[in-house]
Parts: sequence; structure tokens; C-alpha cells
Amino acid sequence: MDLQSTIEQLVVANRILALKGVLDSFGHISARHPEKPERYLMSRARSARVVEKEDILEYALDSKVVDSRGFRLFGERPIHGCIYRARPDVMAICHNHAYGLLPFAVTKRVMRPAIHMASAIGDEVHTWDIRDEFGETNLLVTTNEMGDSLAQFLGNRNAALMRGHGSVVAGKSIPEMVFIAYYLQINAEVLIHSEKLGEVQYLSREEVKLSTQLNLSPLAQERVWEDWVMQAGFPSPSSK
Amino acid sequence: MDLQSTIEQLVVANRILALKGVLDSFGHISARHPEKPERYLMSRARSARVVEKEDILEYALDSKVVDSRGFRLFGERPIHGCIYRARPDVMAICHNHAYGLLPFAVTKRVMRPAIHMASAIGDEVHTWDIRDEFGETNLLVTTNEMGDSLAQFLGNRNAALMRGHGSVVAGKSIPEMVFIAYYLQINAEVLIHSEKLGEVQYLSREEVKLSTQLNLSPLAQERVWEDWVMQAGFPSPSSK
Amino acid sequence: MDLQSTIEQLVVANRILALKGVLDSFGHISARHPEKPERYLMSRARSARVVEKEDILEYALDSKVVDSRGFRLFGERPIHGCIYRARPDVMAICHNHAYGLLPFAVTKRVMRPAIHMASAIGDEVHTWDIRDEFGETNLLVTTNEMGDSLAQFLGNRNAALMRGHGSVVAGKSIPEMVFIAYYLQINAEVLIHSEKLGEVQYLSREEVKLSTQLNLSPLAQERVWEDWVMQAGFPSPSSK
Amino acid sequence: MDLQSTIEQLVVANRILALKGVLDSFGHISARHPEKPERYLMSRARSARVVEKEDILEYALDSKVVDSRGFRLFGERPIHGCIYRARPDVMAICHNHAYGLLPFAVTKRVMRPAIHMASAIGDEVHTWDIRDEFGETNLLVTTNEMGDSLAQFLGNRNAALMRGHGSVVAGKSIPEMVFIAYYLQINAEVLIHSEKLGEVQYLSREEVKLSTQLNLSPLAQERVWEDWVMQAGFPSPSSK
Repeated sequence: MDLQSTIEQLVVANRILALKGVLDSFGHISARHPEKPERYLMSRARSARVVEKEDILEYALDSKVVDSRGFRLFGERPIHGCIYRARPDVMAICHNHAYGLLPFAVTKRVMRPAIHMASAIGDEVHTWDIRDEFGETNLLVTTNEMGDSLAQFLGNRNAALMRGHGSVVAGKSIPEMVFIAYYLQINAEVLIHSEKLGEVQYLSREEVKLSTQLNLSPLAQERVWEDWVMQAGFPSPSSK
Repeated sequence: MDLQSTIEQLVVANRILALKGVLDSFGHISARHPEKPERYLMSRARSARVVEKEDILEYALDSKVVDSRGFRLFGERPIHGCIYRARPDVMAICHNHAYGLLPFAVTKRVMRPAIHMASAIGDEVHTWDIRDEFGETNLLVTTNEMGDSLAQFLGNRNAALMRGHGSVVAGKSIPEMVFIAYYLQINAEVLIHSEKLGEVQYLSREEVKLSTQLNLSPLAQERVWEDWVMQAGFPSPSSK
Repeated sequence: MDLQSTIEQLVVANRILALKGVLDSFGHISARHPEKPERYLMSRARSARVVEKEDILEYALDSKVVDSRGFRLFGERPIHGCIYRARPDVMAICHNHAYGLLPFAVTKRVMRPAIHMASAIGDEVHTWDIRDEFGETNLLVTTNEMGDSLAQFLGNRNAALMRGHGSVVAGKSIPEMVFIAYYLQINAEVLIHSEKLGEVQYLSREEVKLSTQLNLSPLAQERVWEDWVMQAGFPSPSSK
Repeated sequence: MDLQSTIEQLVVANRILALKGVLDSFGHISARHPEKPERYLMSRARSARVVEKEDILEYALDSKVVDSRGFRLFGERPIHGCIYRARPDVMAICHNHAYGLLPFAVTKRVMRPAIHMASAIGDEVHTWDIRDEFGETNLLVTTNEMGDSLAQFLGNRNAALMRGHGSVVAGKSIPEMVFIAYYLQINAEVLIHSEKLGEVQYLSREEVKLSTQLNLSPLAQERVWEDWVMQAGFPSPSSK
């Protein structure tokens, strides 16, 4: 995908995640630059629902902006830069405060996937606590030291929760990142209501693996992407 | 009903179930061919919200497509073909991942109807676990062996849950299938919240039987169908 | 209020209660005839969201229709006729299956008001069980014997729950009935979530009385009615 | 900000809080007069969703209206006047019955912030009980004695719950008041669902302090305000 298409897809993804309640007025998503892997693309400091192509700026992996064009920037850029640096396979990142997953993020509870649509969150989603390494803070990941700590905690997983704060999700493409961020929230909501009904039957490790392969394949990805793009008010990508 | 009307009703039903959150970007519904009972009709692999008449294809009961017209097909067609084969009375089927019922589908808890509008789900809704017979899978029902197992588990009931996955619902008409799928989800949501209030008073077997007769009668069915068709943006079917 | 205004207000009330989720495709509301107190007005068998002025018919208090104009009628008319007969003070009635209150209606739990906006539901809302007197049924109140039993159970209260079914609400005007039906549902939802936080502080009997006087006064009633009428897409009633 | 801009912002804030479900047909917000600190501005008795510029009236701090223009007034004006009198730093106030926080307001449970977006509600949110000082009432704060009691209970905090009733929120600007009122509700909803997952990790006192500084800074405030203004259907304030 070329630069222009990546920027357009990033704008669409912003709108989808705002529509689905994954991003409220806060949180942000980025994509690795398609031609310069040591750069990433992300909006200036603006809410996802109103992000336009003109708002997308270019950042180095130390999260310094290439040209701010005078705009205010997100304070938590290091979440993005540090994960791209640590994970050459990651092409898109979402940092969000989705209300549906916050109940997990304010306890030390490990989240596991119980529904197959959420398998791509991985076997276990753990909660990173900024206090463990950085003591008393405003909870924001505003330095590369903090970003590196979070990136290391994430390891080779696709998702991590952040205590008292939200989550971070990494994908191999923008649609994949949107998909994982969305079903992370749904899995949390299902688990919250299933607790009182009986013992939860989580997916086995093998089921997680097989189900993830299927869910991240074109068969599933193209279907959901077409639906969400159209829900967000954009024309249907050609689909077969 | 003739073929053209069946296809049109199937499109309307797709939109209604998307609107009501029974189908998200995944899940699918089908109708038995009105003139060839050894065939069924279902969309190509596309989200319910955007299905059009041109997307509806014809399938044999072994779930081979008659003419794919080059389209990608749903992988879980065997859910439909195998149930139509096992149940000559069934004219329409819904496979969904409605979030409201997933808390039951991730536990081994049997669901029973507690509200009369949901009586048509039957006395008990059990959860089929693909792992019991097929071991580690991606949870999708992609072979006729799996479809036959699910169809046998469903037996002569109208609904079954699928562990870690969702549900399947069968009806004697498209509107009836939509109706049962919708109230299966509502019943689940009511039960989840009633647990903490005291002992749930489920419908008795006789109440389930009598209430189902009423709910599946034209008095109830025509009323709800008119409402839903109009909510989904289609003109009112003539009603008296 | 004259007959024409009453019919118009009844149509608006149908739309409001559909919008607010108090009525789904089922349930119905009525108003006592403003000139003939031994008659009441209610739609033909149609969903609240689509009821028009032309759908409103006139019924005697034994729930026989004056002129059906060939339309199909609600089977549960006796709920309305029997309460109007037993309660000369009641001018409007709502029978609904609001999902938010169903968790109470499927347990034997008595509901009490904990928030002042819901005080008009009365000190206690009890659940009538059709099985107690009529044994195994389809749960519908379809005879005057059943209607009389429910009316007697309601007594001089404004609201009662119906086991496995829903609720009935009575008011001294159409807006008052809409108001009580709406906050009955909200009170239920608040209670469901407050249980786990600690001991619920219900309103005292005197608070219920004083708060009801205030909430049913023009100061409160005109404010909420204007808001709801406009939300339902009708022009604002003149307000000062 | 001049008077005209304050009135316009107050109208926008009414619409935002109605859209977000913080205000239903009841509740009200005010702003201190930008030029006369011994006066405040608030709508006539009208629902937030329909408030217009022409509805905004001027009140003295004893909550007597300067010129009612014949309009009916909110009975609970003393909430506003008494807090402005006791708190020279407060520039805007919200009294609401947001459903999401009512479960806390009907128990004696102290609410604490667990998510950083809600830090500005302060370390602890306590519940004022009108019955403690005023005995049996209709729960409304309709006299300056009651208003003073509530203002004293609030002290130098930003938020207090009101037993069986709702909450009051104070801010240093209209957008700040809207922000705190919104996230008070979200914090309540997150806590209600987190209880069953394990021990809640509340923000520490230092985290509350640092996080509040950040959240009430222009970096955060301008972003969320632009988003909400546009969601409510108004043009974007210029943003950089």
C-alpha cells in the first residue's frame, strides 16, 4: 500500500473506532509508514471522530515529529514509537480507553479469550502497571523510557491492558489492528456477564491459534472491513 | 411464497438482524428454497447489514453452491445444509454471535425461557461443544460431519448455543426465525440481570407450549414483522 | 381535553414509549374516553412505533370494540377495560414488557423506589402471577376474569409487575402514565446495579409521597413532556 | 469570555450533556456571570436537550431571578447559588441524575476514581443525604438552607452524590464542568462492572493529583471539547 492509501485507511480506521466506542475523545491510532519503516503516521492531537487526512503527521521512531506544521501533538506518542522499534512485524497500533475493557484494567485480573472472534487478543492479556517502574505519575506514557517498558511488557503479544488507563493493541495491518481492538472490548464485556453464570470455558491454546489464523485471514478480514467502512459512511471497498 | 419474494424477505431479515445486533459483521441466515426443498438460499460471504438481493446464491443440502458467480462463500455453510437435511420442517436458519447470549455460550449453563416472548426458544437451550467430537479446531462448522453433529445436537429444538462461538436458530419461516433469534438474546440478557435478584421463576413446560403457540401465530408474528420491516427502512407490508 | 386531542396525545405517547424502549413491538397503551368514561381508546393490534391516529379504536369497559373497522385487535384488552372499571381515577394505562424491568418480573422480588424520579411507582411494586389463579396459560390476560384479577391485585397502586411477562402502569393522564412507565424501568435498572455496591437506601414512605406530589405536578410534567414530544419528532407543545 | 459567549457555551453544554445521557429531561447546569461574579446564568425550567439562548436567565446568588420574563424557573436554583457563594473559584455547576451513577447514589458507598480520565472527580466522592439535616422531604434542594448544607458538604471538592437523587459537579469553566460530570458517570459504570473481577486498584492520591492537572490542561480539554461540540451538531471551535 502506498502512502496516500495508508493515510486514507488510517482516517477511516479512526472513524470506525470512534463509531464503535473503542476510542472516545481520547486514545489514538497509528500506522507504520509504508515506505519508510523507521517512520510512523498518526494524527495531530485530535479526537478520532473528527480526524481528517490533513491531520496525519509523520514521526520518527523516537516519536519526534518530522514536521508538526504548528499543530499540537499527542503526549503519548512514545507508545507508538517504542512498539514499532521493538516489533518490526507490527504495522499499526491502537491506544484506547474503551469503557468495556476498563473493568479488567482496574483490577489485576488476567483476561483470556472465551469467544473465537476475540482469539487474536492472544492466550492471555496482562495488565501493565506504570507505577511498578515509574512510581507516581499522571499515568500517561510520555517518555521513551516508559514506552520501552510498555513495549517490553507487550512482548510478542497483540494486546496489553494498562492499569487505571486502558489498553494497547498491535496489528500487522490497519484493519487487523481495528479488528483486534474491537473484539478485545467485546470479549471483556462477555466475560463480565458470564462470571455469575458458571465456570467460564476459555478457548484452549490450540483453539486460540487456529481461530486466530482464520480470523486474520482475508475471508474474515475483508468481510468485517467492508461492513465497518460502510457503517462509518465511506464507500464500500470493492469486495468479492 | 415464490422465489423472488423469499429472496426479498431474506434481504429484509438480514437488515433487521443487523439492526437488532443479533448479527454483527459475522453470522448468516438462510431460507429453504420455496420450490426446491433440497436447496437453500443464502448470501455470498458478506455482512448482514450490506447484503443485497444480488448477493443471494443457491446451495444444495450438501452446501455445494449451484453457481457461485465468482463470489467468496461463507465457510460455515454446513450449519445450514445439515439442519435442512435433518429437519424437513425447518424453512429458515440463523447462525449468530449475538453478544447478549455469548455469556451463556461460554459456560456450560443451560438456558431456559423466563419471559413469555422467548418461549419459542423451547424448554431448554443446550450448548454444543465442537471439541467434544472434533477436538482442537478453529471452532467453525466447516464440514458436513461437523454440521451433522450440530444438527443432531439440535434435534427437534429451535435453538442451540455453540461453545465459545454463538448460536443456531431454526424456524418454520423467515420471520419466525428472526423472531426466535431476537428473543433468544433478550432472554439471555434478562436472565443475566435477574440472577442476583432472587430465584428465577422460569416458564413451566405447559406455559412454554401455550405461549409458543400464541407467539408464533399470525396475531403476534404480523405485528412484530411490520414493526421490524419498517425499522429496517423498508415499506410496511400490508397489515390488517 | 377533547376526543381529537386525546387521540393525538395517545399517538404521541405510543411513539415516545417506543423510542424509550418501554414498548418494543409488543405492549400497548390506552386512554379513557374524555367524554364517555365508560369507554376507552386504544390502537388496533399494531406496534407502538407505527401507530397512527387512524388506528385508534373505541372500546367498552368489557373490552368489546365499538367498531373494529375490520382491524385485528389486541388480545389483552381486558387489562385495560378491567382496570378502568375498577379505578375511576385512572385515565391512562400502559402494558409493557420493558427489558429493563423484566429481571424483577421473573423473580418474586418486590421492587421499591430508590430514586426520587421513580417515586410515583409507589412504595412497593408487587408481581402478579397469572398461575396463582388461572394455572397453566400462555400468560396473556385475555379474559375479563383475568383482567379483574390483575386489577384487584393492582388495587389503588400505579404499577404492578406480571410474572414472566412484564408490567402494567396506571396514570391520571397520558403524560403521567408515560412518566411512571418510563421511570419504573429506570428504577429497576438502577437497583440491579446497586445491589452489589452495598445496602440500598430506599426512599421512605414520606419521601415517596412528597416526591410523587412534586413529580406529578405541572413543574415536572410539562418539562419532561415537552422534551419527549420533541424527541419523538413532534412539534413542541407551547411551554412557559 | 464575554456574556454572549458564555451564554452560547452554556447552550452547547446543555446539548452535550443531554446527548451523553448525563442530563435526561431533568437536571440543569449554570455558569457564573463572566462580568458580575455575584450573578449566575441558567436556563428557565426546560430540558437540556431543547434549551436555547433565549431561555438563559440571570440569577443573584440567593437564587432570586433578575428578570424571569414570565418563565417558570427550576425549583433547585439554590444548588447553584449556594455553591457559587461558598466557592469563589467555581465558574460552572451541573446538577444531574445520570443513570450510570445512581447505583452509587442509592447506597452509602464512597466512590473513588479508578481510571485516570476520572481523576478530576477527586480522591473520594461522598453522598450527601438531605434527610440527615432536613428530615422527610421530596428530596429537592429548594431552599438556601438546603443549598448551603449541600455546598458545605461539597467543601472544596469537585463532585458530590446526593442520596436517592443524583449528583452535583463544580468546575472552573463550562467545559471543565462538562468533562467532570461526564467522567463521573463513566467511573461509576466501570466500577460497577469491575467489582466482580477482583480487587479494584484505585488511583493513588498522587496519581489523582497529577492526572487531574493533565486532564484539566488545554491539551486534554480542547481536544474533548472540539469532539463534543461537533457531536452536538455545532461547528468546530478553531483548534490547533
